[in-house]
Amino acid sequence: MTTPSLIWANSGDSHVLEPQDLFFERMPRALAERMPRSVKDPDGRWETLHIDGNSWRRRLPTRPLTDETGLSQQDKAPGAWDPELRLKDLDGEGIWAELIFPSISMWTSSLTDPELLRTGVSVINDWALEFQQRSPRFVCTAHLPLLSVEDTVAEIRRTHEMGFRAAFFPVEPPPSLPKFNHDVWEPVWDVLEETGMVMAVHIGTEAHDAGVINGQYHRGPGGAVLNYFETSFGGQRITAQMITSGALERHPGLRVMVSEGGATWGPFLADRMDEGYRQHWSAVRPKLAKLPSEYLFTQVYASFQHDGSAVAAMSAMGWRNVCWGSDYPHIEGTFGHTQSTLRGLFANADPAVRERITVGAFAELFPHVPPVPVA
Amino acid sequence: MTTPSLIWANSGDSHVLEPQDLFFERMPRALAERMPRSVKDPDGRWETLHIDGNSWRRRLPTRPLTDETGLSQQDKAPGAWDPELRLKDLDGEGIWAELIFPSISMWTSSLTDPELLRTGVSVINDWALEFQQRSPRFVCTAHLPLLSVEDTVAEIRRTHEMGFRAAFFPVEPPPSLPKFNHDVWEPVWDVLEETGMVMAVHIGTEAHDAGVINGQYHRGPGGAVLNYFETSFGGQRITAQMITSGALERHPGLRVMVSEGGATWGPFLADRMDEGYRQHWSAVRPKLAKLPSEYLFTQVYASFQHDGSAVAAMSAMGWRNVCWGSDYPHIEGTFGHTQSTLRGLFANADPAVRERITVGAFAELFPHVPPVPVA
Repeated sequence: MTTPSLIWANSGDSHVLEPQDLFFERMPRALAERMPRSVKDPDGRWETLHIDGNSWRRRLPTRPLTDETGLSQQDKAPGAWDPELRLKDLDGEGIWAELIFPSISMWTSSLTDPELLRTGVSVINDWALEFQQRSPRFVCTAHLPLLSVEDTVAEIRRTHEMGFRAAFFPVEPPPSLPKFNHDVWEPVWDVLEETGMVMAVHIGTEAHDAGVINGQYHRGPGGAVLNYFETSFGGQRITAQMITSGALERHPGLRVMVSEGGATWGPFLADRMDEGYRQHWSAVRPKLAKLPSEYLFTQVYASFQHDGSAVAAMSAMGWRNVCWGSDYPHIEGTFGHTQSTLRGLFANADPAVRERITVGAFAELFPHVPPVPVA
Repeated sequence: MTTPSLIWANSGDSHVLEPQDLFFERMPRALAERMPRSVKDPDGRWETLHIDGNSWRRRLPTRPLTDETGLSQQDKAPGAWDPELRLKDLDGEGIWAELIFPSISMWTSSLTDPELLRTGVSVINDWALEFQQRSPRFVCTAHLPLLSVEDTVAEIRRTHEMGFRAAFFPVEPPPSLPKFNHDVWEPVWDVLEETGMVMAVHIGTEAHDAGVINGQYHRGPGGAVLNYFETSFGGQRITAQMITSGALERHPGLRVMVSEGGATWGPFLADRMDEGYRQHWSAVRPKLAKLPSEYLFTQVYASFQHDGSAVAAMSAMGWRNVCWGSDYPHIEGTFGHTQSTLRGLFANADPAVRERITVGAFAELFPHVPPVPVA
């Protein structure tokens, strides 16, 4: 028996956990106290969220979520917080470079003061840059002060100059602003295209009240899986908005990455947009130079973890921008079984398809990243 | 030059327009007046909906919706109301048998009186049976009085005995009742399985206020196409509910058809449910005997009109239950270009894939329908 050689893969979807005291260490105390902060009750059953002078009480799960092997997120990824341990985790799994999303940002949609958000975001990004600099394999996403278009444009410029190559976008803007298909966002698309920064969308990031656990759309039998599926819709909506509004047509250099939402939705959305575009023609505004599908197939990328159909979304449906992602260190990801997942996914795939999904599509977005080791 | 031979296809998605005076002809006047009724202003710019003593004013579109060839629905399908003209339309297009949905039912989600709904539904179904009896190619769906589980069970039994082989389900029940993943619906799944009636779901049938045009979720640039895409989510949600709640596991003879929402979402949903099921294992209730994908691939069917990727959803992703549908007489459908659509879809497809999608999957659901003519 020989040990099968490692399949190296870049990850289009990874996460870093910021230190809990980040804001208190790097902001004036009066401002830090207004940033999102969670305080758990001594018995661990409730937490209190403090955000800009408001508080929300949330009941915590009575036991940690575990996967089918009985492992929780805490068990799975010892290097979630530490860059050195992280690289050891990645080497063990065969994960090479990573597009890394912030964690703390899931709360910032509850901030309503643009100045506070701008200051907090710059602190997150300064810290993320330090993390990124620990390895050329880390591609951190810049967090953005989306309460102001002007601030967003400025932070994209600032972070690009600092060395960021991607900016994190939630699937929808703060509730006080128009959705991403509206023209108010045009300066943001301009600066993304000008700098070459990738628009890195992560699913499950709908704006929501801080007191509500995000993503609990369905209740009753099957609820856990129903909610899991529902989160993918937001990534599809923002993709459709960027295409049908003409934003991608006006910015042919702008590239969108949709992380964690799977990939097979891409050809489906492409066909469905084309059908609506042609059959509801008289109601379509703006008209586009090409069919909606053509923008999706060229300027949109997506990452999946386990989906067998995602390989066929490239090989049989022609979407070359399918990327694999580990979702490290989250429980929805592949930590602990990355190699068996990759072997299963590509057992019958053309080597060129495997190369494109594990390495090539990611490298096209981030050509500065060193190539994967020769296996 | 030779004329290419006709590709005959069954349609998993067609519609009939009930006569406007149906309720007044067949119900006591006092009841008929409470059924949904639209009265257009003389200038044609507004309509008033009358439903059970309430009225809603709705602005009508200033010009009819047209497709990219400039044709509106009125131009496209002269046989929409008349069974004889309809058969001529179908013969011209190469459409053989049809699964036919009611039109009037789109309003009945605004009814709140179970007795009124029960009576109205029986009138619709009595009329639909007469329509169905005009040709063995017509497979009409029974409309259901969903305000009461008991009434629904009784109407499924009654219509099955009358000769119906499918029952129409909106993507969600009336707002006063739990969603379809809840156990209150179990007697309905029981009787569907017992009778062999196909659960025929049509997208775009969310319960909504009568005064609101259903399906206007997005506004601004790209809105028409965004709303078109959004309507497909309801069909995916009900499919996931039927699987993750265990309804399809408990009723292996129950088959679900999801019409007009495309088909490539099937393998995507299958993979995504499996991922959630395995990775969020500790939160999953009920546990199922098989992975969610296995129920979808065996007991769920779906119809699409134009989507090229739907053919690959069968040939490359293994979902054998992909059906084509004409959506006759609606503008989202293929009337006027059915043969060129079918030729394009199957130009490079294996003949067995083409046979399954155009004929076989439909025939599996409705084996009583006579076979398509030899082309």
